[in-house]
Amino acid sequence: MGLNVKPLSDRVVIEPVAAENKTASGIIIPETAKEKPQKGKVVAVGKGTKKHEMTVKEGDTVLYGKYAGTELKLDGKDYLIMREDDILAIV
Amino acid sequence: MGLNVKPLSDRVVIEPVAAENKTASGIIIPETAKEKPQKGKVVAVGKGTKKHEMTVKEGDTVLYGKYAGTELKLDGKDYLIMREDDILAIV
Amino acid sequence: MGLNVKPLSDRVVIEPVAAENKTASGIIIPETAKEKPQKGKVVAVGKGTKKHEMTVKEGDTVLYGKYAGTELKLDGKDYLIMREDDILAIV
Amino acid sequence: MGLNVKPLSDRVVIEPVAAENKTASGIIIPETAKEKPQKGKVVAVGKGTKKHEMTVKEGDTVLYGKYAGTELKLDGKDYLIMREDDILAIV
Amino acid sequence: MGLNVKPLSDRVVIEPVAAENKTASGIIIPETAKEKPQKGKVVAVGKGTKKHEMTVKEGDTVLYGKYAGTELKLDGKDYLIMREDDILAIV
Amino acid sequence: MGLNVKPLSDRVVIEPVAAENKTASGIIIPETAKEKPQKGKVVAVGKGTKKHEMTVKEGDTVLYGKYAGTELKLDGKDYLIMREDDILAIV
Amino acid sequence: MGLNVKPLSDRVVIEPVAAENKTASGIIIPETAKEKPQKGKVVAVGKGTKKHEMTVKEGDTVLYGKYAGTELKLDGKDYLIMREDDILAIV
Repeated sequence: MGLNVKPLSDRVVIEPVAAENKTASGIIIPETAKEKPQKGKVVAVGKGTKKHEMTVKEGDTVLYGKYAGTELKLDGKDYLIMREDDILAIV
Repeated sequence: MGLNVKPLSDRVVIEPVAAENKTASGIIIPETAKEKPQKGKVVAVGKGTKKHEMTVKEGDTVLYGKYAGTELKLDGKDYLIMREDDILAIV
Repeated sequence: MGLNVKPLSDRVVIEPVAAENKTASGIIIPETAKEKPQKGKVVAVGKGTKKHEMTVKEGDTVLYGKYAGTELKLDGKDYLIMREDDILAIV
Repeated sequence: MGLNVKPLSDRVVIEPVAAENKTASGIIIPETAKEKPQKGKVVAVGKGTKKHEMTVKEGDTVLYGKYAGTELKLDGKDYLIMREDDILAIV
Repeated sequence: MGLNVKPLSDRVVIEPVAAENKTASGIIIPETAKEKPQKGKVVAVGKGTKKHEMTVKEGDTVLYGKYAGTELKLDGKDYLIMREDDILAIV
Repeated sequence: MGLNVKPLSDRVVIEPVAAENKTASGIIIPETAKEKPQKGKVVAVGKGTKKHEMTVKEGDTVLYGKYAGTELKLDGKDYLIMREDDILAIV
Repeated sequence: MGLNVKPLSDRVVIEPVAAENKTASGIIIPETAKEKPQKGKVVAVGKGTKKHEMTVKEGDTVLYGKYAGTELKLDGKDYLIMREDDILAIV
């Protein structure tokens, strides 16, 4: 994980997993019909706060709400940064 | 419960129980008239927080408000993930 | 009270007392003019929380605000489930 | 005070004092022009909470804001039930 | 201060100081152009709460925001009752 | 600082520094185009609260947000009174 | 860092890094199409509060949300002042 970013407090940087652009039966979904991805890989974790100890670790695959986080471009790639509390579950 | 999901903090993953599509007297209710299910089975429980100790356990059947939780697709099946505080009662 | 329901945290299940459909002088009030009941009997009580110790007990008759609680159908009967803090008084 | 009502937590039951329907100079004020009473007599007091110790006692005459409280009918008479914090002053 | 009123908790009763109806150069300001008074004399002080110890005393002249407080008529005179936190300064 | 005003709790009285009415190149800016001042001199400081110890002192020049504070006229001059938390920085 | 400004409490003064006005392939982006910068250099840091210990230091390059902070002109240059909690990450 050579990403040079230190999220502040209880924030986590997530690399979204690209949404599938084919249905199970092989039909190609046009770009606009694809759901915004809600799954991603944790690439950087803040130190937490007195009130919030961190649970997720780098490398975890997590689920998060559709509108969670702020988009971030780092080294030309798109990431999301969000508070750990916006992460729903580790899968 | 082979479901591979660990809800964060005080969240719970619930498998909704399908709404009945027949009335007690056997009349079939068309899809659009069926109430969205409000009953489900707990399939995964978070560790809780300092402020919120968990009460429900895997396997409990619970009641929850109509608009509670976020829909989640895991292994092709639909689940809900919600904070335990959105669960009304164990039945 | 054979009702099989355990309200979570500081919630209470209430069986509403049907509104009178006759005035004191015997005039029958049509269904739509009847006030939604605001009086009910407590049928199940949660364990409370660290912050909220429960006061009401099963069997108490209580008053509650017109829009308090969530409607619940249990064994074919209508109940309300609400936080104890939405109960105004024991009568 | 034979009123059979126990307000929960930091609530108080108040019997509103009817607004005067004559001005000081004896002019009769029509019903619609009368101000909603903001003065009343305390008829029942809750036990308070850990955070809120009760100050008013049964029999106190109190002032409260125009829109404070919930209307309540007990034994055919109109009362108000409100949190003590909605009471402005004892007069 | 013969005023018979005991404000609850951290409330203060204030007698507004009438706004000047002449400008410095003697021009009379019509009623509708006068600013609502924002200065007043403290006539009664509550006991405060665990969280809020009272600072103002009876007789203090205080400044308060234009829309602070609730109007109150006591013995035929107009007063304002507000939380001490709505008082800006003692002058 | 002969100003006779004692701000309550964590409030501060500020004398705004008049906005420049000439641009650097000497062009006169009409009154309506001038920015509302955001810089001022502290002329009176409250005692603070248990939760908020005061940092600014009389005589400090401070920066504050455009819409911070309440306007106040004292001895015919215009001041602002605001909570210390609305002050952004000491310059 | 000769900047003469002391941010209050948990605030930080940031010098925004100018947005690129050329795309990677050398196309010049007109002023109105340029994204407002979200990256900046910390030039002054407040002392923090009992609840919030400061993490960033002078000289850190930080990322912040598009609408974070208040614009500030100091010695003729534009800065942003924001609470440390509005800073997303150190890069």
